[in-house]
Order: sequence, then structure tokens, then C-alpha cells
Amino acid sequence: MAKNLTTREEDYSKWYNELVIKADLAENSGVRGCMVIKPYGYAIWERMQAELDRMFKETGHQNAYFPLFIPKSYFSKEASHVDGFAKECAVVTHYRLKNAEDGSGVIVDPDAKLEEELIVRPTSETIIWDTYRKWIQSYRDLPLLINQWANVVRWEMRTRLFLRTTEFLWQEGHTAHATENEAIAEAEQMMNVYSDFAENYMAIPVIKGTKTESERFAGALETYCIEALMQDGKALQAGTSHFLGQNFAKAFDVKFTSKEGVLDYVWATSWGVSTRLMGALVMTHSDDNGLVLPPNLAPDQVVIVPIYRKDEEFEAVDKVAKDLMTNLRSKGIRVKYDNRDTQKPGWKFNEYELKGVPVRIAIGPKDVEKGTVELARRDTLQKEFVSNENVVEKVVSLMNEIQANLYKKAVSHRAENTTEVATYEEFKNVLDSKGGFILAHWDGTSETEEKIKNETKATIRCIPLDGEIVRGECMVTGNPSSRKVLFARAY
Amino acid sequence: MAKNLTTREEDYSKWYNELVIKADLAENSGVRGCMVIKPYGYAIWERMQAELDRMFKETGHQNAYFPLFIPKSYFSKEASHVDGFAKECAVVTHYRLKNAEDGSGVIVDPDAKLEEELIVRPTSETIIWDTYRKWIQSYRDLPLLINQWANVVRWEMRTRLFLRTTEFLWQEGHTAHATENEAIAEAEQMMNVYSDFAENYMAIPVIKGTKTESERFAGALETYCIEALMQDGKALQAGTSHFLGQNFAKAFDVKFTSKEGVLDYVWATSWGVSTRLMGALVMTHSDDNGLVLPPNLAPDQVVIVPIYRKDEEFEAVDKVAKDLMTNLRSKGIRVKYDNRDTQKPGWKFNEYELKGVPVRIAIGPKDVEKGTVELARRDTLQKEFVSNENVVEKVVSLMNEIQANLYKKAVSHRAENTTEVATYEEFKNVLDSKGGFILAHWDGTSETEEKIKNETKATIRCIPLDGEIVRGECMVTGNPSSRKVLFARAY
Repeated sequence: MAKNLTTREEDYSKWYNELVIKADLAENSGVRGCMVIKPYGYAIWERMQAELDRMFKETGHQNAYFPLFIPKSYFSKEASHVDGFAKECAVVTHYRLKNAEDGSGVIVDPDAKLEEELIVRPTSETIIWDTYRKWIQSYRDLPLLINQWANVVRWEMRTRLFLRTTEFLWQEGHTAHATENEAIAEAEQMMNVYSDFAENYMAIPVIKGTKTESERFAGALETYCIEALMQDGKALQAGTSHFLGQNFAKAFDVKFTSKEGVLDYVWATSWGVSTRLMGALVMTHSDDNGLVLPPNLAPDQVVIVPIYRKDEEFEAVDKVAKDLMTNLRSKGIRVKYDNRDTQKPGWKFNEYELKGVPVRIAIGPKDVEKGTVELARRDTLQKEFVSNENVVEKVVSLMNEIQANLYKKAVSHRAENTTEVATYEEFKNVLDSKGGFILAHWDGTSETEEKIKNETKATIRCIPLDGEIVRGECMVTGNPSSRKVLFARAY
Repeated sequence: MAKNLTTREEDYSKWYNELVIKADLAENSGVRGCMVIKPYGYAIWERMQAELDRMFKETGHQNAYFPLFIPKSYFSKEASHVDGFAKECAVVTHYRLKNAEDGSGVIVDPDAKLEEELIVRPTSETIIWDTYRKWIQSYRDLPLLINQWANVVRWEMRTRLFLRTTEFLWQEGHTAHATENEAIAEAEQMMNVYSDFAENYMAIPVIKGTKTESERFAGALETYCIEALMQDGKALQAGTSHFLGQNFAKAFDVKFTSKEGVLDYVWATSWGVSTRLMGALVMTHSDDNGLVLPPNLAPDQVVIVPIYRKDEEFEAVDKVAKDLMTNLRSKGIRVKYDNRDTQKPGWKFNEYELKGVPVRIAIGPKDVEKGTVELARRDTLQKEFVSNENVVEKVVSLMNEIQANLYKKAVSHRAENTTEVATYEEFKNVLDSKGGFILAHWDGTSETEEKIKNETKATIRCIPLDGEIVRGECMVTGNPSSRKVLFARAY
């Protein structure tokens, strides 16, 4: 059906940009690099938030809120952290506007200059660890397991809706522990929470692993991540969880007295996912007709469209539709009944296909006579007639079936687009011909990693945690390698 | 019981500040005027958000998200709006830090100056109406009913936790309508939603009314508000809803074609409540022993404290406690079971009294023998023994009883502290002796309003909507007045 949507084959990148806008997920604002998240996009994000928030609370975390602004001096306390973020941060220098004396309009009041500039948080480790110093004295105060839902700002030069924006929404967990092992276990647990969420709610299979030193978060000793593969063969980092060692505790002097009475620095983790996940969701499942949403995250799981020509036909159709809506809702299904008379059924079919509603039910006068409805699946585009008695049961089982089918398709796609290579030549060939994930031996040095990146634009996405240990030789230098690592070009 | 808490009688303001900190609601951060909302305080805010969000959605609103930053030029487009906010806004002027050449540390990079400064949103009318221009063409696009949960920044000179902070959390609704009447009805509806929320969830009675011209929101034609009375006789504005006329539509050129094909500017409303409500909640119900939370908003409605001396006593107590927890939770009650062995029961009693948990249940070995538990109400501090068979039913009914009792107490307090006066002399006497709400005739001029404010620090809180029309003479000028208006000193 014509959506005036560029096809994925024509131009994947253009298809994505158009789809995000046409499906009413988000749009660019008048502020450079900042997006407006539209109601339909925000409703999906709210569903993501609700599930993640539940998972965080079930693993013992509490929400809190820390300031948007970070004094420049805090920000600079952890050396590698400031190196990582200084180049892309918004700086507040003044606190007042005034009318220009020459009458040219409103200007920044030069007399209202801040003594110390404030950074708009790009991430909150520094302000949070400055606070934790006051909260932590003894082992009794640990572990401290806190999450924050917030907006953050990173002054990116090239931005794309959801994937890379100057301001984005995210959650950031910040935990404090008495021992190194406990902190590592927390970082690993949260990577697993993210992986569960990606696979069971987003229907996106992910590879769990650790980042190489050069790809680690600024200030971390270890960065765990989940990596997903998009339809165009590019990778997308979908979540990260960092073991921060005692770096931030040392920078902000956060010590605790152990059970044994020994004073030591606290061990830390931080972990986050962001509205970037919206981009991953779009790019994993959607097709040339529009969005395809997994039922677990779809704001509307079912849409009912009444079909009628004359007003006298409407009454009977409307009754069946409303009964069905009530019955589906009583089973916990999120149903929209679109009975607007300002739009034709064909327009509505198009609209809900574009918006990725998992199941569409159409009901016309003939259906009413026969006691059936027409049911269409968004994922397979298959249609069938189902009797009124069976439709609720059918829809309930379809929710699981569609969710599972999307995941299965994504797993197949990833399997078809994951290649093991032995030589650098082969590596480059695969990268240019089909892309995807490439598993290859690497000698473990930043120099080789850098060389590969410069020559091919592929990066090491992660050192997979689940892979087997198979010794071999680095595809570039021939030096020994203890396992294959995961390469890809990435978003 | 000793909480080292200043009493309300000694110093109400100090009592409030101490309580907010000691009850773990919030604390000041290292950033001037910005607070950290601690997990317990944030959990109450989350409950407020959940109820309000449900109420907004039930009245047809959808959530969305707009940028944190507003270009200075947008901000200046509506004249009275910029007048209202220019003096207290944080301004972003640069987008990068760098190392100083003299090695003195990190500085703002002078080469990374923005062409146009960005204002950190103090409220979002301007950026949102700039967006609505793209969303609204026809009457079919109306009404547009959108809400945003967000952080905003107003550079206040004197700040107090929750009541007035540089950054605060809030929701801001922004709606667009085809007709003036519809927009007015929306603004009134949202005032009523706020009033329902305040009375039925926060247990705070409020007076609904309109603001005088000088107290209106910058850019509004009418500001509806709800006004609450705190225990110390000062008023607190708990929520506002603005009818904005066509001011923002004109400033941002937002027009629509009506059903009849006529092009006209769109009519607007905006409405918001903020973390300020946390301050109102504390100051309405709490006492010298600590917080008193209404059950509808308490993160923990019931806390169970086991009492035992020897480990062998614990097992029997623990079993009764856990069964009770399960039974209460199955009735939808939020229960915390504090079985920590690092703190004594007395410490826990103190702690949960301070934190305002509505019902405390203590279970000791003697209770187990007798088949009873000890139940203590936070609002009345009454204790009683209840048999195990009756305790669930008792707790369920107590939730309603406590909620109703808090509301009733607050209504009585307000009645006792609302005075009608005839003369300015009387007005000043009442104000200085007991404070509270004062109803008095006013001639309707800004001059008289200003004079009263300057001489007494009392402001017109609102022109009550529910009051009767009773003609009289202004207490200050003797000029005719059509009704009494509500005065108070206010937070």
C-alpha cells in the first residue's frame, strides 16, 4: 500500500528518518539537535519505562532525583570522565536576560554572570557521588541502589532522531557497594536485566559482552553492554552497565567503615538505557509499509475499524465492535476503537499499518450477518475471518504469537548476518558485501583495534561473554588471540 | 518521642526545613538552589504522578516531550511572557569545555560560543507553540490535548526545599482549541482535576478561584488556581490553570481552518502542578513527631515490626508477620515488613513515626500466644490490640478512615482560620494575630491590591469561584465591591 515511504532497499537511512516522522514518533525541533517526542512515540517510551522501572524495583532499586546542573569543578574531578565529556557539554554562564539599552531587544544580562559555570548533565556520576559522600558512612548504608529517570544533554555535532540527539531521555542507575565483587555482580545483573528487557519486550536478540578499553565509559574499569544488529547490517549498542571500581569514590572522597571497622573507599557501578532504544525498535522490526511493534510495547495492541456505507448500517457494526472492545479489554488487551467518521476505512487501514498496531480488526455489515470479523496481523500482513465466539481467544494467543514471531525473525536475521572470518581480507570482503556481525581473532591491542577502525570503520562491539574460548591468531597482526571478538560498523 | 525536631510552635519554618531533611524527603545539593529528591521523597512524588497522570489520561490528554532548551528569540516573542520570566532564567551560552592553555584546569572554550543563546525552560509555552504551528492546520487537528512531565528552571534568589527551588519537577499541560469557550472549559476542567487530586489524594481542602490581573501567569487572560491553607496560617498556591486566549497562537502564528472554512488563531490553555505539592503535603498534616502521610499517597501504608529478644522467639513472630504481609498485600495494601536485625524496635517505631507511615503493626511473642497484634495509627497516635482474624479488615477500613480524618482535620483547621472582616483595621489585626485566610471586600483595582500588599505582605490569593455575590465596600477605599475576595500571606 502506498505510504510515500522510501523503501529500505532504496535508502535505509532515509527510510528510517521518514518513518520516524510519518509514524508520528518524533520530529526535529527548532533547537539544534533536540527532538520533540510526539504523543505516539512517547506512549511507546512510557511502556518501555514502565517495564524497566518494574524490573529495577524488583531487583531492589529505588528512584531518586539529582540536579540538572553540575558545577564545573565537580565535573572536572575525575580525570578520564572530564576528558570523555568536556567536548560536548552545554554550559550555563548567566542567570538573567534584560532589555538592551539600545532598544534592540532582549539580551543576556552581562551583570548576571555566574561565579562558577554550570554544566547541563551529560551523565550524573559526579553530582551523585558528591551527594553519596553525605549518605554513606558505614557498611550499614550499603549497598545503595538508586536509579534516576532524567534528561541529559550531549552536544553532538551530527544528530539523528532517537539515535543521537543533543538532549535525550534516559535512566541512569548509580549504585554503591562494600566490595569489588558485589559491584561487579551488580553491573552484570543490570546487563542481564537490559538483555531480558530487549529480548522479551522489544523482541530484539542481543549479544552480551564487555567493551574493549578504548570503547569503555569514561571513568569505568569495565563496561558491559548489549549489542543488537539492525536490518541493514549495522550494530547498535542498546544498553551499557559500568563497573566503576573506586574511581568516583576516590574523586569525591566517599569512604565507609566495614563490619570489621576498616575504612575503605566504596565500589561503584552505573548503567543506563535511553530513548535510543526507540531507534533500535524501529530498525529491528519495521518494514516498507511502516512500523511493526511487538505487542508487549505497542500502545494499542488491537485497533477495531468499523466499515459501513449508510448510517443505518453503523448501528449493528458499532454494537459488535463495542462488545468486542469490552471483551478484549477485560482480558487486559489494549484496544483502540476508531469510530471517527471524518476518515474512511482505507485511510485508517493505512494509518494503523504505518503505526505498527499488531492486530487490526475490521467489522462490516456482512461480517455482522455472518457472525465473523476480519482480522489482520501486522507482522505477516496475513488476513483471516474469525467467528465472534473465537475472536477474543484468537487475539489473546496472537499477542504471544506475534511477539515470538518478531523475536524469531530477528534471531534468524542476525544468524544470517553473523560471519566468522579467519583473515583480514575476508573480514573486509564480508564487511563491504553484507556487513553484519563479524567474529574474528584480535590480538588485544588498542593499536590493532584503531588500525581496523581507521581502515574499515568497523569497531569491536564487544568481547562476547557467552562465546567459547578458542585460541587463534589475530587476523591483522598474526599475534596470539584467546577468543574471537565481535566486530561491526555501528550506529 | 524525641526526634530532635524543632516543634511547630517554636519555629514553624525551622520545623519544616528539619522535617524535610530528617524524614529523608530531600536535601540541598552543591548546586545553588537545586535540591536532591531522596528515594523516600521521590516515592511520594511518584505516587502523586501516577494518580495525576491517570486523571489527565482519563480526561483525554496524551503525554509528549519537548526540548529542555528554548532559543532566546522564541522566548521573547510573547511580550508579557518574556517580562515575566527573563529575570530568572538560566542561559546556555557555550557548548564545550577545554583545558586552559596556562595549565590552570578546565575552562569554558571561548571558541564554542553559541550563535543564539539558549534558555533552560522555565515553562514551555514558547517552544510548544512553535511546534503546534506545524501540527495544527484544520479544525480536525483540534482539540490538541497534551501534557509533559519535565524539569524546569527558574533562577530564584531565595530558595526552600520543595517550596521554591531553582530546578523543580512538574507537569505542564498545553492544549489548543477551536473556540474560546472550549478553551475556557478546559482550563476550568483542569482546575477541577487539581482540586479533586488535592482533596481526595492529598487530603488537602482547597479554595478554587481566579487570580487578579497582577497575579496572573505571564501571557494569560485568566489564571484559575487552587489555594490551600497551611498549619501556620499561610496560604500556598497548589496548582494553576491558565486560559491563554490567542496570545501564544498570535505570537507563533498558529492558525486553523474552521469547519466553515474560516481561518482563525487557535485558543490555548496551560496548566501545571509541581514538586511544590510535596511542601504542601508536609505542611498540612505533619506534626511535632514527624510526617503524617495520607494513605492514598503513602509509599508504605503499613509497616510491620517484629519484636523478639532471643532468636528462638523470632521464628514464630516472623511467620505471623509474613502471613499478615501476604494477606494485606492481597488486598492491595502497600506493606513494608522491617525485619532488619541491625536496628531495635524502638528505633524503628521512631523512624516510621518520623516518616509518617499511616499504620504500624508490632508483633511480639506474647501477641503470637494471644493471637493478636498491636496496631498504631500515625494520625491520632492511638494504639490498640486487634485479633489476627480481624486485622486485615481493620487495616483496610483504617485506610479510608485515616484518609478521611486527615481531610476533616484540615477542613476544621481552615474553618477556624478563615475570617471575614469589614474594615482594614480588622484585617490587619487578624493578619497579625492569627493569620489564615481573610475574606474582605476589595475595589478591584491593582492600586489598592498593591497598597495592601506593601503595607501588610498579604496578597489576594484568589477571587473565589464558589463564594456568593455579596455587594459591599472596599475595606481600604470604601469604593463599591461586588464580592469578598480571599487574602492571605503566602508561601
